[in-house]
Amino acid sequence: MIYLDNSATTKPYNEVIQSFTKVATTYYGNPSSLHQFGVQAENLLSRSREQVAELLHVSSNEIIFTSGGTEGNNLAIKGVAMQYKSRGQHIITTNIEHDSVHEPFKQLESLGFNVTYVPVDSSGFVSPAAIESAITDETILVSVMHVNNEIGTIQPIEEIGQMLTNYSKVLFHVDHVQGIGKVPLSLADHKIDLCTLSGHKIHGLKGTGILYKRNGVQLHPLLSGGSQEMQHRSGTENVPGIVAFAKTLRLTLEHAAQNQQKMRKIKAELMDKLSAHERITINTPNEHSAPHIINFTAQGIKGEVFVHALEEKGVFVSTTSACSSKRKKPSKTLLAIGKNYEEADQSIRLSLSGLNDYNEVTPIVNAIFTVIEDLKKVMR
Amino acid sequence: MIYLDNSATTKPYNEVIQSFTKVATTYYGNPSSLHQFGVQAENLLSRSREQVAELLHVSSNEIIFTSGGTEGNNLAIKGVAMQYKSRGQHIITTNIEHDSVHEPFKQLESLGFNVTYVPVDSSGFVSPAAIESAITDETILVSVMHVNNEIGTIQPIEEIGQMLTNYSKVLFHVDHVQGIGKVPLSLADHKIDLCTLSGHKIHGLKGTGILYKRNGVQLHPLLSGGSQEMQHRSGTENVPGIVAFAKTLRLTLEHAAQNQQKMRKIKAELMDKLSAHERITINTPNEHSAPHIINFTAQGIKGEVFVHALEEKGVFVSTTSACSSKRKKPSKTLLAIGKNYEEADQSIRLSLSGLNDYNEVTPIVNAIFTVIEDLKKVMR
Repeated sequence: MIYLDNSATTKPYNEVIQSFTKVATTYYGNPSSLHQFGVQAENLLSRSREQVAELLHVSSNEIIFTSGGTEGNNLAIKGVAMQYKSRGQHIITTNIEHDSVHEPFKQLESLGFNVTYVPVDSSGFVSPAAIESAITDETILVSVMHVNNEIGTIQPIEEIGQMLTNYSKVLFHVDHVQGIGKVPLSLADHKIDLCTLSGHKIHGLKGTGILYKRNGVQLHPLLSGGSQEMQHRSGTENVPGIVAFAKTLRLTLEHAAQNQQKMRKIKAELMDKLSAHERITINTPNEHSAPHIINFTAQGIKGEVFVHALEEKGVFVSTTSACSSKRKKPSKTLLAIGKNYEEADQSIRLSLSGLNDYNEVTPIVNAIFTVIEDLKKVMR
Repeated sequence: MIYLDNSATTKPYNEVIQSFTKVATTYYGNPSSLHQFGVQAENLLSRSREQVAELLHVSSNEIIFTSGGTEGNNLAIKGVAMQYKSRGQHIITTNIEHDSVHEPFKQLESLGFNVTYVPVDSSGFVSPAAIESAITDETILVSVMHVNNEIGTIQPIEEIGQMLTNYSKVLFHVDHVQGIGKVPLSLADHKIDLCTLSGHKIHGLKGTGILYKRNGVQLHPLLSGGSQEMQHRSGTENVPGIVAFAKTLRLTLEHAAQNQQKMRKIKAELMDKLSAHERITINTPNEHSAPHIINFTAQGIKGEVFVHALEEKGVFVSTTSACSSKRKKPSKTLLAIGKNYEEADQSIRLSLSGLNDYNEVTPIVNAIFTVIEDLKKVMR
């Protein structure tokens, strides 16, 4: 079987599961307890925080452990909006963000915030100039994803961050969930105030993740209570999950360069071979796209049918983001770059990870071509 | 070693960790994916939801999986407040709630909501009449904990629920985190609209829990995005954690009657022996208190010093709730029942679980008495 749905979720590394199990079994104390069981757990928590901070080249007090990407995005966006609303109530994002960014913006809109959804160009890129022209005196937040989860475009985070240094009132949030380990991003150099990571997209565990929050930025907490995570995220810390996340990030970044090279090679070969088919239109641009995502439209074949036909051949892919595919919503990104509903509905996303292999290219292409031939006959 | 800090956190059952590991290793698909890996994960998710619902005698679409007790309480309280604020902006709670209830009320107060913190009596009980007299035409929510986490008092949830049936506009939330498995509570019979459970307080995993939400109640989601959990709690479902939570709840409820009997016997014996000491005042009432919590003041000995001295004898206890103990805050509940700051600062909480044994009573009492004698000398 060939698993090509790594942007939906990934197989956890065995070492990550082992770390989780070890900590859950042996170091089950509450980090807030005063006795040695608490101290042991607190030490594991602190070391994990330091490790994550070192890996990201930031300070340990800038790391907030969360339950995943959706929580990180919600905390960043709503936390900033509620904290700084007296400065202004205008917030900016793009029209190709993941639902866990898009929906918080929608909720804030319903609470009276003024939102600008900056459109992307026909290749799927947002321009820093378009973001800048949306900024007003009331703007307090810009949120732009690093790597688009549906077609893999890499957004110009560095340029946007640089431009935003001229607007000291505006905080910059980056959804880096699809980027980490795939496309390098320097949080400090790119003037990023808030940055979301998720564990389960990089061979870690579901229910784990972090929000990076630059020192000095304040957040109105979503989860308040016992003041854990420097008061930004209350709740007994999931120490086994946190240790597992730190290990996930270390393994991901240790293997990043090697895995990127491998994925780039697989992707280039797949794009090359697939684009030769008359029915296939590649939606992922050749330039400025991440090494792990290939999106294409197979003319005349509904994506959902395609997914199941490929599954019978042992190849596991998706139509769009997992959460949208389940709700049978067409890809928001494809509509945003000007595809019509039918084209979006006939699209497939292949998403790689470091566990894929170059040897898989031929069976993948054969399976896709065979499925197209088979379905053509059926649909005639 | 004798672990008596089970209200802070518990040792996970081995079977629970095994379930987590099995699912994380083998069924790592995203439940929203259309292919068989997704379907397998979705099946595990659905079966877990059905199992939890059956165990609680409610419907499966009334179960929202969360990352734990703090999230459950925040989602219930803020979710109701933001959803129903057009009906009224008055909300009611008590002055002995856990921080994960108290702080959301404080946040809502800062957003313009009007909050009544109903006081408890000198034994630590809230009266349904006091709650009722606080209700106004603007009231939309009453939140009362089932079992107090610091002194173990059982609040009259049934009577409050019954009284609230006369106020159709008012929703009723119960923080059942310390009650589940210790003191029976019928969600349906007690007219409860929202009820919070946490996994790690009942030998489950940190980062797991549920919010029960009665059908018909609407919530403004805290975590919005991919519309998981019937749109009430977005984010890729932590399927291994969810399966582990269902197993935790099953094991907890299967052993509940037997464990309660054991804990009641241990508690009665401890209360009896400890109360005989001239320096000790028991703060937990004999009647209407949970079988697992004993709170006492040891006159003249700071709680923190006591904790460390007992630790040297292999007995692990706490001063107050874990999150408050770390911040050196005195027990809110003890202050609420009229203890002064010094008395609250000289208090110890013993909290049992089904893993404790009757044979531990004598060594516990001996350790406590020895520590008091030792510290008396030091402090002379």
